[in-house]
Parts: sequence; structure tokens; C-alpha cells
Amino acid sequence: MAIEASKSEQRAARIRFGMVGGGQGAFIGAVHRMAARLDDQYDLVAGALSSTPEKSLASGRDLGLDPDRCYGSFQEMADKESARADGIEAVSIVTPNHVHFAAAKAFLEKGIHVICDKPLTSNLEDAKALKAIADKANALFILTHNYTGYPMVRHARELVASGALGDIRLVHMEYPQDWLAEPVEQTGAKQAVWRTDPAQSGAGGSTGDIGTHAYNLGSFISGLELDELAADVHTFVEGRRLDDNAHVMLRFKGGAKGMLWCSQVATGHENGLKVRIYGTKAGIEWTQADPNYLWFTRLGEPKQLITRGGAGAGAAAARVTRIPSGHPEGYLEAFATIYTEAAHAIHAAKSGAAVDPAVVYPTVDDGVKGVAFVEACIASSKQNGGWVKV
Amino acid sequence: MAIEASKSEQRAARIRFGMVGGGQGAFIGAVHRMAARLDDQYDLVAGALSSTPEKSLASGRDLGLDPDRCYGSFQEMADKESARADGIEAVSIVTPNHVHFAAAKAFLEKGIHVICDKPLTSNLEDAKALKAIADKANALFILTHNYTGYPMVRHARELVASGALGDIRLVHMEYPQDWLAEPVEQTGAKQAVWRTDPAQSGAGGSTGDIGTHAYNLGSFISGLELDELAADVHTFVEGRRLDDNAHVMLRFKGGAKGMLWCSQVATGHENGLKVRIYGTKAGIEWTQADPNYLWFTRLGEPKQLITRGGAGAGAAAARVTRIPSGHPEGYLEAFATIYTEAAHAIHAAKSGAAVDPAVVYPTVDDGVKGVAFVEACIASSKQNGGWVKV
Amino acid sequence: MAIEASKSEQRAARIRFGMVGGGQGAFIGAVHRMAARLDDQYDLVAGALSSTPEKSLASGRDLGLDPDRCYGSFQEMADKESARADGIEAVSIVTPNHVHFAAAKAFLEKGIHVICDKPLTSNLEDAKALKAIADKANALFILTHNYTGYPMVRHARELVASGALGDIRLVHMEYPQDWLAEPVEQTGAKQAVWRTDPAQSGAGGSTGDIGTHAYNLGSFISGLELDELAADVHTFVEGRRLDDNAHVMLRFKGGAKGMLWCSQVATGHENGLKVRIYGTKAGIEWTQADPNYLWFTRLGEPKQLITRGGAGAGAAAARVTRIPSGHPEGYLEAFATIYTEAAHAIHAAKSGAAVDPAVVYPTVDDGVKGVAFVEACIASSKQNGGWVKV
Amino acid sequence: MAIEASKSEQRAARIRFGMVGGGQGAFIGAVHRMAARLDDQYDLVAGALSSTPEKSLASGRDLGLDPDRCYGSFQEMADKESARADGIEAVSIVTPNHVHFAAAKAFLEKGIHVICDKPLTSNLEDAKALKAIADKANALFILTHNYTGYPMVRHARELVASGALGDIRLVHMEYPQDWLAEPVEQTGAKQAVWRTDPAQSGAGGSTGDIGTHAYNLGSFISGLELDELAADVHTFVEGRRLDDNAHVMLRFKGGAKGMLWCSQVATGHENGLKVRIYGTKAGIEWTQADPNYLWFTRLGEPKQLITRGGAGAGAAAARVTRIPSGHPEGYLEAFATIYTEAAHAIHAAKSGAAVDPAVVYPTVDDGVKGVAFVEACIASSKQNGGWVKV
Repeated sequence: MAIEASKSEQRAARIRFGMVGGGQGAFIGAVHRMAARLDDQYDLVAGALSSTPEKSLASGRDLGLDPDRCYGSFQEMADKESARADGIEAVSIVTPNHVHFAAAKAFLEKGIHVICDKPLTSNLEDAKALKAIADKANALFILTHNYTGYPMVRHARELVASGALGDIRLVHMEYPQDWLAEPVEQTGAKQAVWRTDPAQSGAGGSTGDIGTHAYNLGSFISGLELDELAADVHTFVEGRRLDDNAHVMLRFKGGAKGMLWCSQVATGHENGLKVRIYGTKAGIEWTQADPNYLWFTRLGEPKQLITRGGAGAGAAAARVTRIPSGHPEGYLEAFATIYTEAAHAIHAAKSGAAVDPAVVYPTVDDGVKGVAFVEACIASSKQNGGWVKV
Repeated sequence: MAIEASKSEQRAARIRFGMVGGGQGAFIGAVHRMAARLDDQYDLVAGALSSTPEKSLASGRDLGLDPDRCYGSFQEMADKESARADGIEAVSIVTPNHVHFAAAKAFLEKGIHVICDKPLTSNLEDAKALKAIADKANALFILTHNYTGYPMVRHARELVASGALGDIRLVHMEYPQDWLAEPVEQTGAKQAVWRTDPAQSGAGGSTGDIGTHAYNLGSFISGLELDELAADVHTFVEGRRLDDNAHVMLRFKGGAKGMLWCSQVATGHENGLKVRIYGTKAGIEWTQADPNYLWFTRLGEPKQLITRGGAGAGAAAARVTRIPSGHPEGYLEAFATIYTEAAHAIHAAKSGAAVDPAVVYPTVDDGVKGVAFVEACIASSKQNGGWVKV
Repeated sequence: MAIEASKSEQRAARIRFGMVGGGQGAFIGAVHRMAARLDDQYDLVAGALSSTPEKSLASGRDLGLDPDRCYGSFQEMADKESARADGIEAVSIVTPNHVHFAAAKAFLEKGIHVICDKPLTSNLEDAKALKAIADKANALFILTHNYTGYPMVRHARELVASGALGDIRLVHMEYPQDWLAEPVEQTGAKQAVWRTDPAQSGAGGSTGDIGTHAYNLGSFISGLELDELAADVHTFVEGRRLDDNAHVMLRFKGGAKGMLWCSQVATGHENGLKVRIYGTKAGIEWTQADPNYLWFTRLGEPKQLITRGGAGAGAAAARVTRIPSGHPEGYLEAFATIYTEAAHAIHAAKSGAAVDPAVVYPTVDDGVKGVAFVEACIASSKQNGGWVKV
Repeated sequence: MAIEASKSEQRAARIRFGMVGGGQGAFIGAVHRMAARLDDQYDLVAGALSSTPEKSLASGRDLGLDPDRCYGSFQEMADKESARADGIEAVSIVTPNHVHFAAAKAFLEKGIHVICDKPLTSNLEDAKALKAIADKANALFILTHNYTGYPMVRHARELVASGALGDIRLVHMEYPQDWLAEPVEQTGAKQAVWRTDPAQSGAGGSTGDIGTHAYNLGSFISGLELDELAADVHTFVEGRRLDDNAHVMLRFKGGAKGMLWCSQVATGHENGLKVRIYGTKAGIEWTQADPNYLWFTRLGEPKQLITRGGAGAGAAAARVTRIPSGHPEGYLEAFATIYTEAAHAIHAAKSGAAVDPAVVYPTVDDGVKGVAFVEACIASSKQNGGWVKV
């Protein structure tokens, strides 16, 4: 059976890590912690779980952390942990976007590996500055574009790279949701408040929150570089300060074209990320809500439904597949794969060994591209949809 | 059971009709004939089935037509049939696009009702001229945007009109196919040759052949009027003279936005027409390949799968539903509904009665809009995707 | 493209036919008439549309029949039409089951071809007697197990016959509906009243009405002969006089096994006929509500979704496919195929030519098997599910 | 959002546990370990991972266990761990079936909680004896019928219990796979070898391995007790010593009926567990491969697709839902839920508090029923499918 990843349980010592953000009431922090635990590569030993020291402490107690290692700020955590013999080797940054830059900088400068949520930063200037820091740092930077961790996404990428699709002509991405179809941020809902606040999110609303995921995933699978885009970015909900819908036309280097749609007001969609890629020889379609399937159709042949762990799934998928076909893996497993890929890289860095070339994770470069995408969408839209180079 | 249309078998005398085009080797002519027969409202009695008289005669013999009523040209048919006491009352025009104008004109001027394939004409000038003729004629003009005949499309339209979706924000249409992914027109394949020939098709390739269907269907269901569009129209297959892919961003009057994608090179898609509409209260999704289903989701409620003939399907769908739920109707049934709607209107015109207001069919106005859409796509693309009013 | 059937429009003279049953308020009669019209092989010219002469006449007028050929009984129609030079060549029998025997006998004895709805008769004695008559008659007998007309059913049968599935191990059939989940026959609903009346339906309720369809279809595709069955037949709705649910275990000659489930009380199912067949080399699955698809999976290979008219569909499907892939055909088209197969056979019988060996339709033998199946289910159930040979 | 379970991260001290079985080359052991880690309720601290001491030690090293706590037999582990102050509080038994009894007995007698894979034992005598032991023990017994951990299974159960389905009439279960379609046990494949060996598995092959899961799940959701069954159990693959396919008819106490099909030779199925339940008011359908969806249809209303975390999912589902709708959870999450339910019960047992009545997990009683089901299938089949009480 094409199942390799369930062999990846902890053999080397677990990586000691801390977390910035993710305290009581947060959502994505718990996801990162479950992801870190699944393959047993990490031990959570410290946290700056909230910018309010009391809340950080209370949140840390909930998680069984040593109170001495529950910090009131990420800077304090960076300083104190880097001074401990048993200090953290890595940190997860799971705050709203505007904190990413300073937090990542603090840990990178201490030589602590950074696993950071997306988008990279809240503006392109920060993104480029962070890249400069990361490039020079004595530590790794991993961006959790978690959807790249799905086995069938890995297989799609492998199919494209193998030439099975021929020359790529079209890349279509969409990411519709409906949770912001009404002005829920006005009710104080925490997840909605910061995501619709330019000071915390940056210039992009739906474009930053989910458009970057779709763009990253289309790029990850297709291997194509975007050349320019034309966008019609819009806010449907009155009073909202950031976009909640964007229509984007894309032109890739080499001649492929595409469309991207992201929306937080598409009534009836929960989390409808989908990527479709069409080449001269074959086409593929992958839907995040049903992630264990990949449609693959060669021109003039019957459609094939390739399943995770099943017939037709190749080596790249098998590397990150934990359980047999028909036993569905989900979002947390894909997220865990990013953590485990990071662990492979961190172990290699510790030992000085070369990292296995099969290890793949999103990097600071992907992060810069994502923020550039958002800013290009906004810029194009301000020019009434004129084409903007990225 | 919500089944009304199987009661619509012939009660009044059948309508005598002729056909222009649709001879040996044609495809859509046979579809029109099956559609005309299904509900028993028509008798095919004459034909100018080919512009080659011998082929017209041979094709007519195949269909059991009286050889005296197999004509060598549409003009001859218009002249001779209009002079007969038992002459045709209606004509179906199923030729390549460039013939539509002259043929429709010939019959309308004789007071013969015209049922014409889409797009209306091969250019906007002809379209407007034909509209002027049709508006003055003593005969009806029906355009076979056949997808509007599907019961669940009727139900979708009824849902929007009833306010069930609230204010419409988004209209997304796509129509991907893959049958022109290779230069099949160079092999002489008849359906491909004329569709890729500007002289026969007009300025639009995929935009005219299928983009007009998608645009018409989105308009039909949403009830919205397009204001302007920005298009990236492209030809992927080398040597092809018309577009085979188009990405279009849409702005509707009243503030709704949309995207439209049509493609003949989307490998793996057979005939992937899909319409999705999102309002403030609910969203809908309909896929032509699975036409007996309509997804309907109210904001904050479980998704509903409404079925043709089943629970939740309303009066507009029931009018055009022939058989019970779970017994699928298909493309020919939807096409037949256009013919039967036309028959209702023709019978009313004959008797001088008012036509039932529930009768709906695409008109010459829809046809003008379709051709205007194609020309706007081409114009926008020539301006590198600038917005063009339609 | 793999589309042959749209070439089958009327070339020989249409077959003159009459109808027994199918008057005002009936359902399946209209289906038969639409089916007979679709491919233009038939002219309806006479009817004994009701056993009430006035209603027969009124129903005939609705359909545009000559009042002189609207008869008050099938016997009268058989006598008078057989005496006319332009009398009917074929008859469709669309009455409740108990009338099939006498009506079919009347026409077969006059040398008029019979197209008869299923089940063949209301008891096995009649079925065998009818077979004896049909075998000796100078006329054909066609049973409208209409589901055998679907192109993908034909393809499934061809796959099995070709050996693509290897040795068949399992045949699973199910046919759940929910329209009798409540005692609707007590409201006088016509379709429910006769189907739950032993005098009109025979010994089987759900087993006769839909179980026979499922059994026929499983046999048609698999080519297997049933050896014995064990059944748990039940009536859930209080006061109902015939079964509304049956669970059946099957053993086929040669060692294959199977299950069959039919139900009229399976809440949420509209018309859920499904057949799944598993062999040593491959498995297939076909669902009537989505009839343009056939799942085909070779052991150890990715699942394939074969589409009507599309890649992978073979010659047997192409023969009965009218329109291209992605343009769905439905129930009426499949039903029409049975009529057109019958027309091929009738034309051959008229001309004395051999019938094309590709022509396939259900026969009186299939009908006998169906009634034997029903009676075996009832007999087994009376023995508390003991195995009964068929 | 209806997400409660991601709040369940470790707050009380983690439960120390050991594992019996699950060494190198095993499959289900890794699943249990991932499940135990996901919600951070457990620490794996000891193991008798293999009955070969060297392999147990090597396997323990792989997992980072203290070599002193890697035991050569479960008895040694029970003895030594129960003597330690920091000894294990719970044990997971993940061996082939025939070891379950003795291992469970050893730990229960030491007051160590047992989490045991299914089926309970390899024969009914052992099952009953184990129940007697468990009932008297000062420790809990949890059986990992893991499919009961899926949120939408919990919701289905809640719907039935609420009366939303009315009176249950039909319970249909199926569990087809194809991984034993060929005699893979003859190639030495470890998973196949023991599952087809009566000495290790007991009397049931497919019936024990997967039939018990399907039966348990149908019972769990419907709340019904089986009264009797009639089975046709068969071995298709030559030389195989246990059944690889079973057809079963079911009669439940109270009058409901059902069918159950399990197969390891159903070519094209990976892990096709499905449960469908039909009542007088509504029907439901759940498919394990797409576990985030539950079809729910009220009689006479449109089908509803209820999604995990989404609209319509109730409190029972929310309790065990970790992440929002549209972010799929899978098999490991459901398995983890069993572990976390066990943790809730173990924490309550430790503290002497009453366990939250919402906590649900399969027990030794469910285990006895499962083994009784297998033996009844075999017994019925030996009587050529006669009805056998369970």
C-alpha cells in the first residue's frame, strides 16, 4: 500500500517549540497544536499565547505548560528561551497578520526556526524585509500554506511536473466562502473582527485571507510563475473596510492563462477551495472539501478518479499518506504534513545533513509572492482592472 | 406529482413546419427534429436541408418528406411554401450562423414563424437589422437557447424572481469543453470547420458558440442586465482563426458582479455548462450535465438538493416537467420544451388568443444581446481587457 | 463521436400502431407515446385507451386520433384493425398487469406485434401461457423493461460479455422508492390504487412493480441465470394488501451470488434503481438517476467514469446514443430505444430480412422470468425465507 | 460555530498508557497512537509491542520509549507497570483478535483501563468471559469501533433518538472492500495473513473484520436491537480459510428489517462502509469515505446535505467537531474521538466524578454483540441461511 507517512512517528528527539498567539478563544492555534502533535515530532514547551500576560499564563496553564515558560510577549519569549539550554528550537506564529513580521524577526534573529501562518505579513514592504532577514538567518522559515500538505495536491503537482498534462494552458482557482455574507464583524466575532480590520490584516480582506491560499495552491501544483493580473476587487457588505470578493484574470509566464475567484459572501459555500488545471494532454481537478480524490482526465480517455492511498497515486502522495485508501484523511492531517516536513528540515539542519529533496514546504519566497499578489489585486482594481505586473 | 408537461401532447392540429439546414451529416438538425416530435406539436413537411439541391432532396427522402417539398434554397422554400394552402406555418433554421440572417428574413417577411438556432447572426449589424425585421413581422421569432428549457433552470429563475435569494451579488457562469483542444478543424471535421471559420461563425469562436449560451443562461436565471465587461479572449491552438477560450469579468446593472469562462480546450470537460448565483439570502448552483438537480442553500441553513419533479420544485418547473422525479429528463427534453413553448405561442397567434403568461422562450432581443456580448468580448480583448459597455 | 442513434430517424415507412390503455389520467401511456415518437418510427393511429368507451373516445380525441379508430375494448380494436388494409401493425399495451395476458393474446392471434409493459402478467400461469402463444404467433413480442435501453447499461452489458470483469462473483441490485411510504392508495391516487390491488397487480407489490425491473436489469447486464433465492418480503404500511419492501438473497447458476432490495417505503429515494456487479478483474456501478455515467474499476487501477457518448463507451452504447457526451439523455430516450429496437425487428419481419444481431430488446422469456421471480419471492417468504428455485 | 472538540486539549494531566501489539510492520498500532496524540490526552510510556522481546524493544526505541518499559509480553507489562508508582493507567490492545481476551484480562485484573481493538475476541465464549471480567473489574473497557466517533454519525444517532425519522422501518448497512479479491495472504502480506487465519481471527473473515463494524454502526445509529438474521456467507477466493463475502438479512426487535453486506472481494471498493436508515418520517444516508456529509430527507421535502460543523449539525456532533465546516475531518479524527471519550471517562473514574452523560463509546457489551453477530452469521449459513436468533 502506498502509505509512507505513518512510518514517520518520532524517532529523533522531539523538537521543542513555542507558540506566539493561539491563546484562549483563538482558532488557528489549536489547529497548529494538533498538527504538531499528530506525527509526534514536536513538544510544545513555551508560549506567548496572548499579548496580555495574564491571558497568556491562563492559556498556557490550560495546555499544561510550565508557568515559567508562559511569556507576556514574543520578544520576552525569544530572549528567555534563546538563553535556556533546553530552550525552544522552533516557534509557531499564529497571530493576526500584522504581528507576523516583528515576531518572526525576533525569533529568526535568535536562530530559532519559524513556522508562521499566512499571509506572510500585512504589507509587501514588510514581506520583502522579512525575506531579507530570513535569507540571512541561521534558522529556517516555513509558511503554513497548509493546503499544500494534502496528498492529492502533492500528486497533482507530481503529475504536472512529470509532463502528464502536457503544456499547461489554463489554471483556474476559486475559494468561495459565505461566513462574511453578513456584517458579522459588527457583532464582535473575533475571527471576523481582525480579518476585516486593515490595521491587523493589511490591504486585503478576502484576497489576503483566502485568495493567497488559492493563488499559492495554483502555483504550487502548476509550477507556473504569475506574470500579470487584472482584478475587480469589491466589498459587498456595507461598512466593511476590506474586500470580501475578488474576480481576477491571470496571465502566467510562458503563456498560460487563468482565473481566480475568492469570496466571503458566496452564500452556500463553506470553504470551497478548488483548483483546476488544463494542459494539452490532460486536465486535473481537486476540491479541498473532498481532499482524498483527484480527477485526472487524459484527452480522449475516460475520466479517472485517483484516490489517496489508492491505485494511481504516486510517490509524492505516498510520502505524506498515513492511512490506507478509503480511510479519509482531512485538513488536520494536511496541516500536520507541513509540520512534519518542517521537522524533517529542522532535523537535517541540526545534524548538518542534507535535507531529503522530497521534502517540500512553503517558504518565505512563497510568502512574498502571496503579499505581492494581494497588493497587485488592490492596485489593479484601483486602476479599474488594468493589468498589473506582479 | 409536479408533472404538467406530459399533458401537453397534441390537441390542436399539429403545426406544419419546414427546416433550413440539417441535412445529411449535420448534427443539430436531428436534435431539432427530435425536439419538435417529442410533444407532438409539429409535423415536418418541407425542407431546404442543404444548399446543394441534390443533397437537400436526398436528405428529405431519408426523412420521408415529399420530394416536391425538398427545396434547393431557403428562398425557394419561403416562396413556394407561402404560396401553398397547406404550406408551412413555421420554419426551423439550423444552419451555420452566417445564414441565419437572410434565412430568417425570408420567412419572417412571408409571415412564417421562425425558430432559429443561436447565436442570432454572425455580426451585430445583422442582429440589429433582424430585430427590426422581426419586430415588424407578422410572425414570431424564437431563438433556441435550449438550456432555458430545463425544468430546474426554470425553477432557479422562479426562485430568483420570488426573492428567495435576496439581492443578487454574484453571477458565475462557465462553459468548458475540450473537443477543440487539438486542431481538429484541420482534419476536416464538419462541426469544427465551420465553427472555427470567421466567415461562417462571425467574430467569436468559443465566445459565440458556447459563451453566448452561458451568458444567456445567467441572464435568464438572474434576471439581471449586463452593464459592462472586461475580457481576455485567446486562441490556444496554433493556426485556429477564432478564439477557443475566454475569461470575462462582468458588472451588471444594479451592482452585481460576475465571471464567465468559456473554453473549447479545457481537457476533461465534455459540455460543462454551469451557473452559480449568490444573493444576500441564498445561493444556487446548476450543472447542465446533471440537469435534474438544483442546489439551493439559504444562508445559515443546510444545503438542499431540489430535484426535477420532486419536493421543492415549483410551478414554473412543473409546467415543463414530463415525468416523475427520479426518472431523468435530459437535453432533448429541454430542447423540446423550447419547441413546445413556441407551439403555445404559435397556437395563440393563430387563434388570436393571448398567450399564457407562463410561456417563456428566448427571443430576438436575447439574440441581439448575445451577439453584442460576443462583440464586446472581442472589443475588450483588443483593448487588453479594458471595460466595454454592452 | 460515438453517436449512432440520431441517424435512426424514419426512413422506412412509419409503423402504424395502436394503444391499449393510456387514456386520460394515466401516466405510462404518455411515456410510451413520447418514446414511440422520438425516433420517428411509429404513427399512433388507433386506441382502446380506456375500458370505458366514452373515455376511450375522449382520450383519443385529445391525441388527435380518428374517432372511428377509438375503440371501447382491446378485442374490438384487434378485430377491426386486423380487418383494415391500413390497420395497425403493432400495439402497445400499457394497462395494469392483469389485462396484459388477454390483450396480448388478442393481438398476437391476429398477427399484430405486441409491445407490452411489464411485468408480463399478473401470475405465472398466465405468463407461461402467453409465452406459448407468443412463441407460436406470427408476430413479435417486446416487453418494455425500459431500463435496458440506456446506453450505459448497454455498455455495462458489453463490458461483462467481453470478459472485462473476469468471472462474475457478485450482482447487487437495489430499487428503493418512497412514494408509498404512507397509505396513499387510501386517498384514491390512481397509480397507487391499482399497484396495491392484488386483483390488478398480481401477487407482488414492490416485487412486481420495481423488483422485476431490478432483477431484469441485473440479469441483462450480467448475463447470468438465477438459480435460487431466499426472500424476506414485507408490508410496512398498515392495511396495504401487497408487499412494499423486499430483501432477497440470490444465488446464480455458476456460483455468483447477489442481493436485491426493492422498496416503496425508503424515505428519501425517488427512483433509486442501481446495479453493481463485481468480477475477478473489475467492478461496475450504474445508477439510473444519473444514467449517463458508468463507474468501471479494474482491480488495482484507478476508478474510471465512463460517459455516454464519451471516451471508453463502446459500440453497443454508440448504437443507441443520440447526442454527444455532456448532453444528457434520460429516461424517455432509453424508453424510446426499446421502441426503436422493436421497430428494427418489425421492419425486418416485414421485409423478411434477418434482424441485425445488434438489436436487443426484452422478450416474453424475460417476462416469464420476471413473474417467476415475483412468485419465488412470495413463496420463499411464506417459508420464512427458505431457498426457492426459480 | 458548532465546534466544541478543539477545546478538549489536555488540561488534566495526560493519561499514561501502554500498548500491546503495534510494533514494526503493524498498521493499526500507528493509527491508535496518532489517535491518542491528537487531542493530547495521553502519553505513551510503555509497550509490549511485539511478542518477540527483541522486536518489542526495537519497536519501542523507534517510538522513543524507555527501554526498561519495553516488555516481551503483555503479562510482563501488566505485572511490572502495575507495580510502578508511575505505571500505566491504561492500555491499548492492538493485536490480532485471538490475543484480545488474555491481554484484556491481564490488565483489567490489575485495574488498568483497557482500550481494545475489535472484534472483542475470536469466539463468543471468550467474549462472554471477558464481559464477566470487565463487569467486575475496577477499570473501564473501551472497544474501538472507531466509526462511531465521526461527528456526522453522532448527528445521525441524535436525529434518530430525537424522533426525526419517526419509526424506523429499515436499516441497511454495507461494507465492501476489494483488497482480498486475490489470494494475497499467499504472498505473505501480514495484514492479510492473520485476517484469513482462523486461529488468529476466529470463525469470521469478512464478517469479523468489517461486518462487525457495519453491524455496530447500524446499531449505534438506529438504537435498535437485532433479533434474528439469515446469512449466506461465502468464500470466493480459492484456498482461503475464512469468509470473504457475506449477505445477511436482518430482523430487529420492534419490527424493523434490514440487510447487511460485507465483502473483501468487491472490486473497485476501497473501504465502502455505508449506513442507510429509513423511518416513517425521514431517511438518512452516511458514507464513511465522505464522512463530513450526512444526507437527511424528510418525507415529501427536499433532500438536505448536512455538513460537519455546518448548519443543521446538532449538539452531539458539535461535541466531537474540532474544526469548522468545509475543513474536512477524517478517519484519524474519528478514531481520536474514541480515545478522547475514553479519556473523559478515565478522568471521571480517577476523580470519582460522574462521567458527562454525553460521553459515548463502544463497550464490552457492544463487543459481545459483535462476536455473537459473527457466530450467528456462520451458524445461519451452515443451516443454508435459516434464521438464527442473536
